[in-house]
Amino acid sequence: MKQKGLLIVISGPSGAGKGTICRALIEKRPKIHVSVSATTRNPRKGEEDGINYYFLSKETFEFRIQREEFLEYARVYDNYYGTPKKNVLKRLEKGEDVLLEIDTEGALQVKEQFPEGVLIFILPPKLEDLKSRIKGRGTETEADIKKRLDCAKEEIQRIHEYHYGVVNDDVDRATRDVEAILRSEKLKTNRNYQEIIHQYL
Amino acid sequence: MKQKGLLIVISGPSGAGKGTICRALIEKRPKIHVSVSATTRNPRKGEEDGINYYFLSKETFEFRIQREEFLEYARVYDNYYGTPKKNVLKRLEKGEDVLLEIDTEGALQVKEQFPEGVLIFILPPKLEDLKSRIKGRGTETEADIKKRLDCAKEEIQRIHEYHYGVVNDDVDRATRDVEAILRSEKLKTNRNYQEIIHQYL
Repeated sequence: MKQKGLLIVISGPSGAGKGTICRALIEKRPKIHVSVSATTRNPRKGEEDGINYYFLSKETFEFRIQREEFLEYARVYDNYYGTPKKNVLKRLEKGEDVLLEIDTEGALQVKEQFPEGVLIFILPPKLEDLKSRIKGRGTETEADIKKRLDCAKEEIQRIHEYHYGVVNDDVDRATRDVEAILRSEKLKTNRNYQEIIHQYL
Repeated sequence: MKQKGLLIVISGPSGAGKGTICRALIEKRPKIHVSVSATTRNPRKGEEDGINYYFLSKETFEFRIQREEFLEYARVYDNYYGTPKKNVLKRLEKGEDVLLEIDTEGALQVKEQFPEGVLIFILPPKLEDLKSRIKGRGTETEADIKKRLDCAKEEIQRIHEYHYGVVNDDVDRATRDVEAILRSEKLKTNRNYQEIIHQYL
């Protein structure tokens, strides 16, 4: 009997460094499968269907929403973004771990649909750092930055809805935190009870 | 604001190797405080009061049971054994981690009194190994061994009441499992919520 894979949800405010930690984790654990999102936006130069995103028409996306084929989805301005459910569940069944890097609204949608998922909230070292990281991108106005910071505060206030909080003050240490979480989650008796009983009794 | 320490409860069937793992853990993490049990049995040669055990009279022990001064206790034949509560709670408040190595009945008593405790069940690699380990001690009859094995099976059946199960097939690996559990438990948002809110908002 084989243990199911873990659904690892890495989330947190924009600018906290979710992407950096996910890349560092995948480098150390290449067996973790990174879920590919679906979107209705147009592919940018160099983006490939099935690699960067699944590019869907608006009609197809809405049809799939109706059929509850997404673990989570959101409409951002004129486009949809979402995580197709089927492939994720298939890999988990096979014992593979699956990583989702998504925004906080998506993360909480996943939790509702899949309570066994492991929700990790990435915290910036300080709110000030978040500000300078967002500024560093050079694409936002002062008003945008203020809006993003207010949004980050609201998101942090809901951190109790996540299982773990990891502070991204050092990518190496934060990645090791995430690895420890995955290791210990696999040791939880509620994920292993049947295998243990089968093996020992 | 400081995070409270973890109460780490290492338990499992007799012969599974709890003691070995606790010693290996303490060697790597000397800051973890090992709780000293109380008992009414007589000190053996070389045992010191307050180091190996707190040696109490039967009257004192029973008085302290009445006053609910134990996290757990048991009567084994004519003697009592128990974990004094006050010192453990004081150290946890100060942010120190405290380790209890106790039998499965005691572990479940602790869980009831202190649900934040982290219960780790140590599993032997196979039931056969447990048998040879108990035999290796050379102090038990065949009937005793059968009784112990039956008891181990009953204990394993209740493993879902523990948070984690660690297989002791390799002491190093098992100790790293326990370390990963401690690291990830400290990242749980329900242990950190107040500190996070205080720090960020």
